[in-house]
Amino acid sequence: MKKQGLLVIISGPSGSGKGTIVEQLTQRENFSLSISATTRAPREYEQNGVHYFFRTREEFQRMITQNELLEWAEFCGNCYGTPRAYVIEQLQKGQNVILEIEVQGALQVKKLYPEGVLIFLVPPNLEELGRRLTNRGTEDKETINRRIHRALEEMEFVQDYDYVVINDTVAQATQDILDIVHAETMKCSRNQDIQKTFKGEI
Amino acid sequence: MKKQGLLVIISGPSGSGKGTIVEQLTQRENFSLSISATTRAPREYEQNGVHYFFRTREEFQRMITQNELLEWAEFCGNCYGTPRAYVIEQLQKGQNVILEIEVQGALQVKKLYPEGVLIFLVPPNLEELGRRLTNRGTEDKETINRRIHRALEEMEFVQDYDYVVINDTVAQATQDILDIVHAETMKCSRNQDIQKTFKGEI
Repeated sequence: MKKQGLLVIISGPSGSGKGTIVEQLTQRENFSLSISATTRAPREYEQNGVHYFFRTREEFQRMITQNELLEWAEFCGNCYGTPRAYVIEQLQKGQNVILEIEVQGALQVKKLYPEGVLIFLVPPNLEELGRRLTNRGTEDKETINRRIHRALEEMEFVQDYDYVVINDTVAQATQDILDIVHAETMKCSRNQDIQKTFKGEI
Repeated sequence: MKKQGLLVIISGPSGSGKGTIVEQLTQRENFSLSISATTRAPREYEQNGVHYFFRTREEFQRMITQNELLEWAEFCGNCYGTPRAYVIEQLQKGQNVILEIEVQGALQVKKLYPEGVLIFLVPPNLEELGRRLTNRGTEDKETINRRIHRALEEMEFVQDYDYVVINDTVAQATQDILDIVHAETMKCSRNQDIQKTFKGEI
């Protein structure tokens, strides 16, 4: 029997380095990225079932009412959500599924799937966050200040998460998350069949 | 501020390889072994405060009534217990403290110190356990059967533990425990001051 994978939900403020860390993780064989459903139109290069599951408003509405989404939200007139079926299918194959998502969505997922592991990624400190946002060179001072303010607001939710990982270096933070996933697989609550395995019954 | 260490409580049936694993862990700089208090007489080489805290019956009784022991039990007419003060002192220095202890004691400790991490160490399966006990060459068949029976009884308590580690090889099981300890230090519940740290307030 293949051991079930873990749903790993990663949040963190803009400048926490989520994107890079998630990329590092999904390069590993046993980690997959969750694929979102959306009502927005596909861009030229985007494939259905690879980048997104593209759905009409009606289809998306049906997914909501039939409880097929672990979470969903609307941004700029388009709906985005996490289809439960795809996640469950990957987990059953033994894949760990990464969900990179903002705080409200993460807490929704945890309610519907309490076995999920919530990880909050933070930059080492405010000063470093400011430096990272400035170094991008893509945003003006006002936007950077807004992002810092938003980061401080998001940090209020850190205690609702299971783990906090400080992204000092990408390599260390990636290893931190791998260690968390490894430790979680050894939780007794995830090994209810250990006695049977021990006795050679399964 | 030095970060507090973790109390790591390790149990496992005879033949699980606890002793070897604990030795591997305590060779690391940031791991200490808990020192037990006992009423038994010191052997020639044993030093008070190193191998045991040697106590009279009266002193031991006083430790019990004054709630100074995290757990205690009597074996063959002698009392053994875990002095809370020594453990707390080590944890405050930032040391992780290892407590190698049988199931009943472990559950007592968890009640008095819920932040402790309970790890149950098991051999890969019954067959391997039988092989290990036989290979010691020190016990007769009847004793071995009794130990196997006892192991099966102890396994009933595995669900009261936080983690289960399968001791397939010493190196892997040691690493498993180090990963558990590492992951535990990243738990949000152990990082209540993360927001202050982030803002540079402490």
